[in-house]
Amino acid sequence: MKDSSQTDRIRHIAAELFAAKGYNGVGVAELGDAIGLGRGALYHHIGSKEDLLYDIASRYIADLVESGRQITAKYPDPIARIRQLSSHLMHAVGQHQAEMTVCFREVDTLSGEHHTNVSRLHAEYEQIWVDAVAAGVATGVFRKIKTEKIAIKGLLGMYFYSFLWLDPNGRHSPSAIGDVFSDLFVRAFATEKSLAAGAKA
Amino acid sequence: MKDSSQTDRIRHIAAELFAAKGYNGVGVAELGDAIGLGRGALYHHIGSKEDLLYDIASRYIADLVESGRQITAKYPDPIARIRQLSSHLMHAVGQHQAEMTVCFREVDTLSGEHHTNVSRLHAEYEQIWVDAVAAGVATGVFRKIKTEKIAIKGLLGMYFYSFLWLDPNGRHSPSAIGDVFSDLFVRAFATEKSLAAGAKA
Repeated sequence: MKDSSQTDRIRHIAAELFAAKGYNGVGVAELGDAIGLGRGALYHHIGSKEDLLYDIASRYIADLVESGRQITAKYPDPIARIRQLSSHLMHAVGQHQAEMTVCFREVDTLSGEHHTNVSRLHAEYEQIWVDAVAAGVATGVFRKIKTEKIAIKGLLGMYFYSFLWLDPNGRHSPSAIGDVFSDLFVRAFATEKSLAAGAKA
Repeated sequence: MKDSSQTDRIRHIAAELFAAKGYNGVGVAELGDAIGLGRGALYHHIGSKEDLLYDIASRYIADLVESGRQITAKYPDPIARIRQLSSHLMHAVGQHQAEMTVCFREVDTLSGEHHTNVSRLHAEYEQIWVDAVAAGVATGVFRKIKTEKIAIKGLLGMYFYSFLWLDPNGRHSPSAIGDVFSDLFVRAFATEKSLAAGAKA
């Protein structure tokens, strides 16, 4: 891809169309019309339609992984870390709702190496949360539960599903929703003792 | 629609295609080929493609609302009710994963009266859970939190998002996952006192 502001614009328009109609519901001609580029110029910028989907689907989850690692390094305290991860995730959703919808909903539309790479990034992001819970178990603020992986997968779904109903201009800001969700997440794992202490960080 | 086994078959094949490729990614010709009916016979059975989507999207959420009301009537105890709602929802997902994916993901693809009706059913289903939490607040097993609606919407997203990753033949059965989720749901609202008592029903 060339000029980055042009590429950002293409990526955003495409993400909005893919989010609204599904990747398979958007043709190359419709994409070109929305972006204001003919077929030749469009292919010059995006490679193929699947390259464009891969670019959207990989960029935002790669950003989440990178920020998640920075948060992990900066917040050794597990509860503070969960709160930061939560607030960062909901902020990212609020800022890039269309891109995030595509990123989370269209993973299985990708094929081959594209699918492998994006699935790996999603697994790496999940692992960041698994590590935060493990850190809490190690310090004794979180309980050890046998079904931890399912619980974490479920709780992350709470964030991911919000792409379908979040209204960034609604009564509750994405960051306020992130606070509600981090309370639920922390409470799901907190020991009775840390709950009684308020499970604050 | 006519003969019900034929209609069930059409609905199921269509739901699998819509779940895999998105409603807008599936043409009427492809639908007819998969079902083994020509355009005329297909339209005779389904009305239009949107009628078919409406039929899928409304039927499964209407079933959830009906079962949810039966569970509400049968289980006055709020924690027992949450556990039943949870297990019933995950069982329904496991049984009709493609239909449920369409039901939850394609609401906004519907238009006009179809959209209004299906949105109302989704709101009614959410209300069943809101009522269960309110019942728990009334009996004192659940805390009253200000952000209750956002918390319930979030926790339902945990169930709904599972359509994207649930493997009905995987290591954890849908009903085992439902048990993990109901623990998380109950824990999210349980008072310290009921948590200490095990929040069992």
